[in-house]
Amino acid sequence: MVNAFAAVAADKPFQAMDIFRREAGPHDVVIDIAYCGVCHSDLHTARSEWGGTIYPCVPGHEIVGKVSAVGTHVSGFKPGDIVGVGCIVDSCQSCPSCGEGLEQYCEKGFTGTYNGRTADAPGHTLGGYSSRIVVNDKFVLRITHPVEQLAAVAPLLCAGITTYSPLRHWKVGPGSKVGVVGIGGLGHMGVKLAHAMGAHVVAFTTSDAKRQDALALGADEVVVSRNRDEMKAYRNSFDFILNTVAASHDLDAFTALLKRDGTLTLVGVPEHAHPSPDVSALIFKRRAIAGSLIGGIAETQEMLDFCAEKGIVADIEMIRIQDIDAAYDRMVKSDVKYRFVIDNASLAD
Amino acid sequence: MVNAFAAVAADKPFQAMDIFRREAGPHDVVIDIAYCGVCHSDLHTARSEWGGTIYPCVPGHEIVGKVSAVGTHVSGFKPGDIVGVGCIVDSCQSCPSCGEGLEQYCEKGFTGTYNGRTADAPGHTLGGYSSRIVVNDKFVLRITHPVEQLAAVAPLLCAGITTYSPLRHWKVGPGSKVGVVGIGGLGHMGVKLAHAMGAHVVAFTTSDAKRQDALALGADEVVVSRNRDEMKAYRNSFDFILNTVAASHDLDAFTALLKRDGTLTLVGVPEHAHPSPDVSALIFKRRAIAGSLIGGIAETQEMLDFCAEKGIVADIEMIRIQDIDAAYDRMVKSDVKYRFVIDNASLAD
Repeated sequence: MVNAFAAVAADKPFQAMDIFRREAGPHDVVIDIAYCGVCHSDLHTARSEWGGTIYPCVPGHEIVGKVSAVGTHVSGFKPGDIVGVGCIVDSCQSCPSCGEGLEQYCEKGFTGTYNGRTADAPGHTLGGYSSRIVVNDKFVLRITHPVEQLAAVAPLLCAGITTYSPLRHWKVGPGSKVGVVGIGGLGHMGVKLAHAMGAHVVAFTTSDAKRQDALALGADEVVVSRNRDEMKAYRNSFDFILNTVAASHDLDAFTALLKRDGTLTLVGVPEHAHPSPDVSALIFKRRAIAGSLIGGIAETQEMLDFCAEKGIVADIEMIRIQDIDAAYDRMVKSDVKYRFVIDNASLAD
Repeated sequence: MVNAFAAVAADKPFQAMDIFRREAGPHDVVIDIAYCGVCHSDLHTARSEWGGTIYPCVPGHEIVGKVSAVGTHVSGFKPGDIVGVGCIVDSCQSCPSCGEGLEQYCEKGFTGTYNGRTADAPGHTLGGYSSRIVVNDKFVLRITHPVEQLAAVAPLLCAGITTYSPLRHWKVGPGSKVGVVGIGGLGHMGVKLAHAMGAHVVAFTTSDAKRQDALALGADEVVVSRNRDEMKAYRNSFDFILNTVAASHDLDAFTALLKRDGTLTLVGVPEHAHPSPDVSALIFKRRAIAGSLIGGIAETQEMLDFCAEKGIVADIEMIRIQDIDAAYDRMVKSDVKYRFVIDNASLAD
């Protein structure tokens, strides 16, 4: 059995729990988890804010750890390797999307690292708020960052890839003018990544207090989006805007900032619908509003390698697993710069 | 002076009126108008449904006629040539969009064929519900269709290019599965054009009565969009959907039919906002909702040449200018297959 922390109901605190992990099959990698990032999706799922949560729920899909054993057919990993696991632990591997390495869009639906269906007991997947995980080698990532950065690497597995994938898909690079809306767990990675890709990056925040922070993250400019005059000066100027804010808000304020043929890409699902976007703002500049979901395994590896080469990690605040409920309460208030990461050694306490 | 029919107020019938046309400048082409299509924008403008209408208003931007004179610097046209004029009669010619031949997205704003600002009396442009027009040669199109088809060519200048441009921009061709929503003035052209481009075309209509008509236009399949079960069978199957319906409606019903990376492109501005689209439908398939506006001059010429080569014209009902008010009333009821075209000879009656 494996130590874990689980939510047992939407309105109950987390509790310590022993969970089952399967024996390593021929293609499995057994990973002793060192760190696990705390994603907003963890909170939404643990508290059943999206519905459909299966309890007990062990969240966590920003996992970094060390390989302790591998199955007989695993050739890419060996005990001692430092590896990561992100949001996906299985997919059909036969649909067109899987064939293109876009497992996040698996047409049968990918298996999430937690709250997904599995043959393993108890019938749903259990994530990284635990001391060990067993994952098919196709869904295990190699990590080459220096070992002292591992805790800060963990958030790359979700926050990193969720921002990296759309930046690449919409061809952000030198010469691009890119906006990143919302400077939180996702947005702070978006700023770092877009900057590292060579773009001119403008960070949009509702908080004047985040100006200096956003510049420190790599933004070339910071705009306080509540300030209409400040926004107006940026009309028709962006090639691409990555909008990481899930809370319902006025999208038109950002589509108006796009050049002709520009795209506003959303990565967060709002609990309450955004006000309906202005269609004329799309038509008169051939603009688009799009969505993007995490990233595939190959692209996640590419992102990790890119980040290792560029020295990019998340800005984190480390916590013990026993402090997870308090961390969630702080996340709700956006009181974290910019990601909590669990030191999984605390599970043994 | 030139014969015209003008709206003098939002709630008054059209009336005959003499209007001024400028003398041909060095780059001007003088066109005796033979036919003018009747676009829904004419109605919206004449009745000031979008606001901003300047009276007297002479609508009409689907113009076909014969050159009667050209300015001293005009080399591309000569008297007797059959030509067309669409929605645009001028643009700045110096911004990046104009530089790319995308005058419809002119960053200073293009000059519309009617209700646009001009130095000519009375200070705003007057369109094709008139017997003659004078247009800068850069905005005049060559027409090579057989002369007996000219009336049915007129709607290509707006309905044709409005559907052709997005079909080309989103790379519709052999192997594409394309939806066209709404089988009216725009939609019937969308079906014909997408079919001629080699796509598999599915027409969406709210009216069961239009099934046979849509097949006759070139649709491979027809779906009655009110029928949920019929819609369901098409989920995740379209590369591109061209939505020509301006009336407020549920966009999610169509985004759900797009494949991963598919785009739903809107070409109509709704009077009342569409219900806010479901963001998760965009995120979970990397879909986009976009807009597209008419087309540039070079692309309009390309479209006309394509249609001439393929034998494509609009399906029209010819009217006399004296019947324009009645025609508008029928358009409001969608009682036209699929475009009214004015026989401008009737202006002399």
